[in-house]
Amino acid sequence: MVFTLRQIANLIQGDVLGDADISINMLAKIQDAKSGQLTFLSNLKYEHYIYTTQASAVIVQKNFKPKSNISAVLILVEDPYSSFARLLDEYLKLVNFNKVGIESPSYIGKDTTVGKDVYRGAFTYIGNNVTIGDNVKIFPHSYIGDNVTIGNQVILHANVKLYERTVIKNNCVIHAGAVIGSDGFGFAPQEDGSYKTIPQLGNVIIEDDVVIGANTTVDCATFSGDSTIIGKGAKLDNLIQIGHNVEIGENTVIAAQAGISGSTKIGQRCMIAGQVGLAGHLTIANNTSFGAQSGIMKNVVHEGQKLMGTPAIDVKHYFRSYSAYKDLPNIIDRLNNLEKKIQPSQK
Amino acid sequence: MVFTLRQIANLIQGDVLGDADISINMLAKIQDAKSGQLTFLSNLKYEHYIYTTQASAVIVQKNFKPKSNISAVLILVEDPYSSFARLLDEYLKLVNFNKVGIESPSYIGKDTTVGKDVYRGAFTYIGNNVTIGDNVKIFPHSYIGDNVTIGNQVILHANVKLYERTVIKNNCVIHAGAVIGSDGFGFAPQEDGSYKTIPQLGNVIIEDDVVIGANTTVDCATFSGDSTIIGKGAKLDNLIQIGHNVEIGENTVIAAQAGISGSTKIGQRCMIAGQVGLAGHLTIANNTSFGAQSGIMKNVVHEGQKLMGTPAIDVKHYFRSYSAYKDLPNIIDRLNNLEKKIQPSQK
Amino acid sequence: MVFTLRQIANLIQGDVLGDADISINMLAKIQDAKSGQLTFLSNLKYEHYIYTTQASAVIVQKNFKPKSNISAVLILVEDPYSSFARLLDEYLKLVNFNKVGIESPSYIGKDTTVGKDVYRGAFTYIGNNVTIGDNVKIFPHSYIGDNVTIGNQVILHANVKLYERTVIKNNCVIHAGAVIGSDGFGFAPQEDGSYKTIPQLGNVIIEDDVVIGANTTVDCATFSGDSTIIGKGAKLDNLIQIGHNVEIGENTVIAAQAGISGSTKIGQRCMIAGQVGLAGHLTIANNTSFGAQSGIMKNVVHEGQKLMGTPAIDVKHYFRSYSAYKDLPNIIDRLNNLEKKIQPSQK
Repeated sequence: MVFTLRQIANLIQGDVLGDADISINMLAKIQDAKSGQLTFLSNLKYEHYIYTTQASAVIVQKNFKPKSNISAVLILVEDPYSSFARLLDEYLKLVNFNKVGIESPSYIGKDTTVGKDVYRGAFTYIGNNVTIGDNVKIFPHSYIGDNVTIGNQVILHANVKLYERTVIKNNCVIHAGAVIGSDGFGFAPQEDGSYKTIPQLGNVIIEDDVVIGANTTVDCATFSGDSTIIGKGAKLDNLIQIGHNVEIGENTVIAAQAGISGSTKIGQRCMIAGQVGLAGHLTIANNTSFGAQSGIMKNVVHEGQKLMGTPAIDVKHYFRSYSAYKDLPNIIDRLNNLEKKIQPSQK
Repeated sequence: MVFTLRQIANLIQGDVLGDADISINMLAKIQDAKSGQLTFLSNLKYEHYIYTTQASAVIVQKNFKPKSNISAVLILVEDPYSSFARLLDEYLKLVNFNKVGIESPSYIGKDTTVGKDVYRGAFTYIGNNVTIGDNVKIFPHSYIGDNVTIGNQVILHANVKLYERTVIKNNCVIHAGAVIGSDGFGFAPQEDGSYKTIPQLGNVIIEDDVVIGANTTVDCATFSGDSTIIGKGAKLDNLIQIGHNVEIGENTVIAAQAGISGSTKIGQRCMIAGQVGLAGHLTIANNTSFGAQSGIMKNVVHEGQKLMGTPAIDVKHYFRSYSAYKDLPNIIDRLNNLEKKIQPSQK
Repeated sequence: MVFTLRQIANLIQGDVLGDADISINMLAKIQDAKSGQLTFLSNLKYEHYIYTTQASAVIVQKNFKPKSNISAVLILVEDPYSSFARLLDEYLKLVNFNKVGIESPSYIGKDTTVGKDVYRGAFTYIGNNVTIGDNVKIFPHSYIGDNVTIGNQVILHANVKLYERTVIKNNCVIHAGAVIGSDGFGFAPQEDGSYKTIPQLGNVIIEDDVVIGANTTVDCATFSGDSTIIGKGAKLDNLIQIGHNVEIGENTVIAAQAGISGSTKIGQRCMIAGQVGLAGHLTIANNTSFGAQSGIMKNVVHEGQKLMGTPAIDVKHYFRSYSAYKDLPNIIDRLNNLEKKIQPSQK
């Protein structure tokens, strides 16, 4: 994909300072950009790179005053970072949505509706009574069970698995190997010490603009009519476990290998770091932040807290306690000394 | 699937109080049940719902005395919860075992035996010298390596991967993306700092009534003739790691993202919570319970203990220590004060 | 696969003490070996087994003096353990590299080059502009995206997923369900509280002799031209998360369920135990060892340290502090006593 600088400048409403007819074939960061590539300068601590870059063009803030000669053509904009992000975004669409059509062999069941501009890779499986919107891209080996509904502009990367009844809304991206709608972990203990499987008859609903990472698992709700819900705009990293009946609020971000136990409700705009675990049946307020590897065992009632540890406490408190913890052998020595001084006869 | 109330009442040996000819098409919980659906009342804190439910029928204890009018038909039984669980169970069988036959394309190797009423979804792969029992359901994209043996009534959900020599007994369910029989993590250090792969020639045996969660991995044993064993009735959640030569006892339950290192033997009826990690070569007594995120580094010799923390200690002790831990900055202040009073000249 | 003892002795330059024409069909450990099998005796604490083993032959050190009759034929070598490892290695090659040819159906794109002696299992997908070396074994359901390069002697087990642009060098083994090259977790916060996806345009490079475990995920680098790099000889276990732009040094070993956040650089010959988590943008010195479940939040500058805990500290310090931690309730009692004695009037 090759564009002229003029085409690019039009897209981001920038002014070209130099030859607008040169060709650009790639975006790169300023340290690495080569001839034929476009980069940007936003944070001025990287300014020195602009005088030596081999990039063919650089997006800069329109009031930027060079201290020396720049060989690259400049595009002047209000906000170089946003403009560059916008271009990356357009590039992403070109890359991700460029596949169309049906590769063979692929399998499609009965009573299934498929929108326009859909890509169905080889070895994709679509069950019965499935509805798929426009511009959906289904990469090879993906599995779509019976009665699944998928909106528009959804990307299922290679080998995504959607159990039956899953609902995926618009503009979602699900990465390779993710499993959506597997059985919740529900077993009723029996008198003989064994467990009876409780059928899991609910589903999973994934709202608009959600991203789900590779090999992440999201269990379905237990009862028919109930749903595990991943809220609008939530971003989930790789290898995350989401239990049955969990609800994740809008724009909440969850890092890799975190786990949310059954029936826990997470608020909006929360930040859950890597390897965090939450117990079941909790309610977590909006804007809560959990540090890496934290273990959460209680509801979080007040919004905006930063918590850490197992069980999780205020992050500043956590680090003060941890600092004391490292000092514990010394604390015990001091205590021994005091005891000797005060109760010498008892020792 | 539609049944009359009479059919349902017969199955659970209940008495119908009302019209036994009405049709039921779904089971639901009492808060959510709609017309055409069947629900149950077991815990009386939900009693108020029975007077307003739109469910067509409700299973109740036979001595239940309504305080007001109930529009739903009642089914009277000894134990409503068990009766409802029984129905869910039957429903589960209908749902899970209703697929039969071979979808195309699918692959089957040489010298392979397949029982009756088997479902082989599209894009399933069955290797050479494989034996598959009756009523086995192999969902799309599942992979069954050479020399695998599978019993009766086993469900392999989409894209389960069984390495060669794996043995799965009867009534097991393996969820999407699980990997059974991958190489154990065995490498012999060499003098130059590199590692030599130790071939992993054993297998995995999964006993009757085991459930394995989505994207869980179970490694094979190292030596030929040895097995990693998941005992009868064990239930494993999603994203769990089971190392080579591990043995999991009967009816042990393991929650999501826990990891068991190589050669560790877990007893019967243990409860291992989420994100727990066990070191290798340990022996864990029956009925041991580990709290979430615990790290276990020693054998557990006495049965029935509840442990928590890293390294794991008695759970009550853990919470007392954690409470003191949170108080550590304050403890240090108190210690400073005492030292000032006692050794003012030394300060 | 059956060999004579003479063939085996030649391979490991051993001398046969007994009938060199007997047939061997399997390798096993000395406790378990049966007739027709070959085993070895290296650690003399297992010596008693050699007098009762049913193995047809045993590899022993050439100066070994039996204390009693041995019915098995002996092969005398310098180093029994190495010789046995060598045989296992040869056996592994025979087992892993014995599949050749193309099973049907399989998919191959345009402008793709495939070397000789390659196995392409049924339902494998190879995209456009892919280069595959000699003796590569691609098991069923594996997915190879566009513009991927694979060297010689590489094994992709069932259902490995390689996103586009991935580079795999020689002699690598990737286990079932692993995902290589998925999008890094990069999202730019917007003013309205939502997040914008940052396109991930880099790739993953896996150097020679790397092993990657089942269902492990390795994200691609963010910028075009950048790579996430798994160094030569590194061994990764199952269910590991490797973030975008991470670099893993040569011969570093990572146990199951560990997670490395974006842009962290790990040195050579490090040992990272199970469920360890590393924050992003760290640099870890060569030969660093992290204990299980550790959380690493700072650079490790000095080589050869053994660290543990969250945040990680010297492992001996960690265990001393943990020992004091368990004693904390008692420490508080002692402190209370001291305070009562010193400040009785203030209590």
